[in-house]
Formats: sequence, structure tokens, C-alpha cells
Amino acid sequence: MISGRLPAGFALAAAGGILLSGCAAAMVAAPLAAGAGVFKASKQSRASKRERARQQAQPTPKPGQVFTAADGSKVEITTLTALPPPSGAPAAAAPTGGNAPPAMQYLYGSGEAAALSLQAYQALWNYLKVEIGYRRDKSQIRSVVLTPGSTLDNPRFETCGKRPLAVVLDIDETALLNLGYERDEAASGGGYDAARWSRWEQTGADKVAAVPGAAEALAAARREGFTVIFNSNRSAASAAQTAAALDHAGLGPAALFDTLWLRGEGEPSGKDSRRQKIAGRYCIVAMAGDQLGDFSDLFNAPDASIAARRNTVGGTLLAPLWGAGWFMLPNPVYGTALKGGLDDIFPPDARWTDPGAAPR
Amino acid sequence: MISGRLPAGFALAAAGGILLSGCAAAMVAAPLAAGAGVFKASKQSRASKRERARQQAQPTPKPGQVFTAADGSKVEITTLTALPPPSGAPAAAAPTGGNAPPAMQYLYGSGEAAALSLQAYQALWNYLKVEIGYRRDKSQIRSVVLTPGSTLDNPRFETCGKRPLAVVLDIDETALLNLGYERDEAASGGGYDAARWSRWEQTGADKVAAVPGAAEALAAARREGFTVIFNSNRSAASAAQTAAALDHAGLGPAALFDTLWLRGEGEPSGKDSRRQKIAGRYCIVAMAGDQLGDFSDLFNAPDASIAARRNTVGGTLLAPLWGAGWFMLPNPVYGTALKGGLDDIFPPDARWTDPGAAPR
Repeated sequence: MISGRLPAGFALAAAGGILLSGCAAAMVAAPLAAGAGVFKASKQSRASKRERARQQAQPTPKPGQVFTAADGSKVEITTLTALPPPSGAPAAAAPTGGNAPPAMQYLYGSGEAAALSLQAYQALWNYLKVEIGYRRDKSQIRSVVLTPGSTLDNPRFETCGKRPLAVVLDIDETALLNLGYERDEAASGGGYDAARWSRWEQTGADKVAAVPGAAEALAAARREGFTVIFNSNRSAASAAQTAAALDHAGLGPAALFDTLWLRGEGEPSGKDSRRQKIAGRYCIVAMAGDQLGDFSDLFNAPDASIAARRNTVGGTLLAPLWGAGWFMLPNPVYGTALKGGLDDIFPPDARWTDPGAAPR
Repeated sequence: MISGRLPAGFALAAAGGILLSGCAAAMVAAPLAAGAGVFKASKQSRASKRERARQQAQPTPKPGQVFTAADGSKVEITTLTALPPPSGAPAAAAPTGGNAPPAMQYLYGSGEAAALSLQAYQALWNYLKVEIGYRRDKSQIRSVVLTPGSTLDNPRFETCGKRPLAVVLDIDETALLNLGYERDEAASGGGYDAARWSRWEQTGADKVAAVPGAAEALAAARREGFTVIFNSNRSAASAAQTAAALDHAGLGPAALFDTLWLRGEGEPSGKDSRRQKIAGRYCIVAMAGDQLGDFSDLFNAPDASIAARRNTVGGTLLAPLWGAGWFMLPNPVYGTALKGGLDDIFPPDARWTDPGAAPR
């Protein structure tokens, strides 16, 4: 077992929840029963994830189809999605809205993805509090931005001197969920459309939500004196609307060229040049993003294979930064993570031939 | 700014990397340039994630198609995927293997998902070291398993007394990447097949890999005296093969009914009953999983809406556990996260109507 000499009560403080601030009892790692949540749970589920997947995979019976049960009775499939009310009035219509792609079900609908996001922001806040906040000599703190001339296999970081401490993060699917845009994209079925995205930046400021945990973590960071700065490839031309969207989600304030850095007309999309400008004014002690390019443009080398790119994350000296200075948010919906064929993403030595498969 | 009274050097220790143990210089949050990574990066990418998405969305020109360029010259699309070598020998064939679903590209191929996993295991290890390891009075440590009778809005946890400390985690897509099975499922195009999965459990033990960060974190936990216990819905009938798969990936050892708990013939798929058996012997101080059912069966209440289920994660007293006792791993490929239509996953108040869309 590990033993240590921390002051009594430290464990409680370091576990401190950002999510229920002001309620110390709820901040310990294993909260006691207290208060009431917003959702009333009932009984346990009995179907495993694999069983559920199998249920989904079976062909859906069609309305009007008639089956004969084992006891000889006939069963007809109807279009009803609920029992008719006792009054005899017609049943409620089936849910509308159309099918959602699995990645959207995951990111925008699931508790699993919400937990990943809460966990990332919890880690960010713990890091600011423990690793940065408890440092005696602040002048020895290093920036987590790679210095110019770094490579992924030879990363360099500089001490900050007296610059004020800052957290730099991406906006889309890092701090802000683009609910309105993504629903519209899925409903229209057309894939990404730059003109539509531009209209979204201009008119969608009130159709967004904060990524779970983001608003609480950013507020806590600001309260402790960290400057929160956004570095995004959204257009500088819609800076006012983007600042309004951040405000709407409880993530602001953000002011252009101070705490909000956006892409100018004709500017390249890499983020390193803006990162360096921010690093000239601030000591960037933590970064958050949903894409590797939110941490360094070096990850997007155009000649890197899928496997080599993935390996730069865990197989270099940068590996210990994940969860300790660099904080990743989930996004399987769009971006640089989504590329490659089966042979690119699965290694040849892990190829399995199903011994029971029909010849194909 | 936060100030504290921790002993000098603490910040370094708490940032300790699990990933490069034995190399103290690389463990600080912002490593100095030292040594050489396994991947040699070159120049910066200039295309934003949105631009890349757009490139993918444009229709692919077909071989044989002829275009006229702005200067009047003709351009014909060929089937070549690379320039022919100077020798004049035929060009290499196009990559084989077929298309991968986006969720598989993300989980098995991307650096982004690898970073999420490293971050989760980094958080787990930091938690064991700081929150549990530095506790003075170990008898006051609470289990992170909900006690029987708990509800999600009234969660209860018990102190452990003298039971030995343990970490409990799921296997599939939590500790182990099922590379062989998932590639085969994608290549055959058939969706989940229980018989095929059963053959996979029996014959795929050497076609797996550890989730990034898992092997290092579990080894570090064992080194510090924590017992590592797997709780999985894999079949108890393939216990030997599952133990072999864990060994192959560097995650073992695992022994049935001691450190390996699997689903018996005809047993329900919920994990609470096995969790309670483990909790009777051990003090479970951390749990890891890729599905909410890896933490409590209560999350899978069959009558909960998509929104209510998601809300139980961040809107209850359980929220502070994510990243502090409960550790989530990413999995957009299969499981309980993947359900719901657009109206289930997107809230009605975030519905956006594109002002520039053609009427539909």
C-alpha cells in the first residue's frame, strides 16, 4: 500500500467535485445518501450490452405481418407504439425525428459520453488545483504548448516566468455541443456543408449546450484566477455570435483577440500560430480539445499513416500529458479521427478468421 | 491563485506518469526534450477538421471521367492510387480491407480515442495514488459500489473496514480491444452474431490488444498492493481462453471466481450480483468500464428515456464520481449507449432551422 504524509483532510479536498460546488458532502469520492437527484430510477436492467446489440440486429417485424405462436394462437403486428388509452381514444403517434447515426446517439444522447466529458473536466480541474495551484514556485511552471522547433519525438516546453496562468481550449464539441447544427445535418442527410455551417455560426447561438462538466470547470478555473481562452477555427467574422453562443451555454465571457481567438479570412486552419500568439501573453498550463490538432498541428502531418498517427499519442514522450496538462473530449461524429479502411485501423497481426463462418 | 502547503516535490510526484515508469524526467506534466519517440513527425497539416469533412463529403470522381481545367487542358481520372515507380513497374495496388464504420475508425484507429483511454487510466492511477494511497485512516475508505437498496437519486456507499483494496473493471473495450472480432464483424457486414462472439471467446485470445494505458495502470496498481479484478459478461465456459487473452495483452493474471468473474450459464446479464459478491471480499475503491452497467445496473432501467438516462450521469449526486472512483472508457462501436432517434437524443429547445436551406 502507498503511504504518505499529506495533511489530514487533503484527500477530501483533492477529490473536490467541481460539479456540486458549495455542497461539501457531495464532493467526496463516494458520496453518502443525501438530497434527491433529478431522475428517479426503478428496477434493474437484465439485458447485457451484447444481447441488446443482438436485439437491434434482428429484422424488425412489419405492420400487418402475422405470426403463429407455439400454442397455435395468431399474433398480428400493428403500427401501435403504445397501448390505446382506456378512453378508447387513438394511441399517440410513433416518435418522429428520424434515425440518428450511431456516433450522434453516442455523443449527444448517451450517458456514457456524458460521463467521459465529466471525467475529462474533473481531471482538468483537479490538475489546475493540485498540480498548478499547490506549486510553491510559480515561476518554474512550464507551458504545455510545444515550443516552435519541437517535433513529436523531441517535444520541448518552456517555463513561463511571470506571465499570468491560462487554460486554452477549443470550442466545438469541446466546450459547446452544436446540437442545432448536428440535428439539422442528420435530418437533411447531406453531410457537412460549409455554407450551412457558416449560417449556423451566424444564427445558431441559442441552439447549443455546454459539454457536460465544461461550464462548472471553466467557472471554477476563473474563480481561482486562471484566464480561460478559446482557440477555434470558427470564423472571426462571426465572433459576436460565437461569443453569444458561449454565453448562452454558460461558458463565457469571451472577447475577440483577448480570450477568443478565431480564424481570420484566408488564414490557414492549423491552430499553432494562434497558440503561439496566446503563449506570448499567457502561461498556458492546460489545454482541452476533441481533436489532436487542438494540442499541436504536428499531429496532423499529412504523410503519417493511421497507425503512426495513433502511435504518436501513446508511444512518445507526450503520452503522460493526457489527463495531466492535455485533456481530450470525445467526438466520434466528425473530424480528423475519422479516416482509414479496415486494413489501416486494424493491425495485421490481430486478424482473426472465424472458424464457424460460411465460406465467402 | 490557489495556494497550498504541500511538501516541495509533491506536484512532481502526483503528476507521475504511469506510462513511462522508470523515466522520471518524462513524468512531469510538461516533459523536457529527451530521448526519441517511435514516430518521426514532419510538417504541419493545413486542413481544418471541417475542411477535411467537406473533402470527404464531395462526390468521388470515377475512373475514366474527363474534366476540362480552367486553362483548357483535359484531366482524366485513372485507377492509380500512387505514381508509378521510376522503373516503370506497375504501381502498388490500392489498399485492401474494405471500408470501416466511423465508430471503428474512431475507437480502433484514431489517436483521439487513444488519448481518451490514456487519460482515463492516468486518472485511475492518480486517484489510487493520491486519494487512496495518501489516506491516513484506511478503515474510513468507502467502497465505490452502490449498496443494495440504493437508487440513483439516493446513492449509498459503505466503509470497508479491513477488507483488502481492489480495483474492479470490465474486460471488453475497457481493458481489452477485440480487434480480431470487430474487424471480422465489419468485413462480414453482418452485425452482431452471438454464435460468432462465442467462437471468438474460444479462439481469439491472441488477436486482441490492451486498451491504451490499461496494462501500465493495472501493473502499477498491483505493484502498490491493489487487487485487480475483472467483472465481465463473457461466458464462464470460456474462462481459460479469456484469461489467456488478458495475459496476451499484458493485463493478467486473472483467476476464475477470484480475480475473474464471468457470466454463468443462464445467469442474467446485469453485473450487480457479481459486484456484490466481490464487494463482500474486497473494498472496491475504483471501477472502470465502457458502459454505464459496468458501474451499476440501475443505469439500465428499461423505462428510462434517453434524456433521463443521460441525465442520471451528470444530474445526480453521482456526477462527482466520474474521474474520481468511476472511470469511463470510450466505446461508440456497440452497447447500451447506441439508441434513440433524433428526437430522443436532441432536446426540442435546441432545434435549429437552417435559414438558407432549400424547402423540404
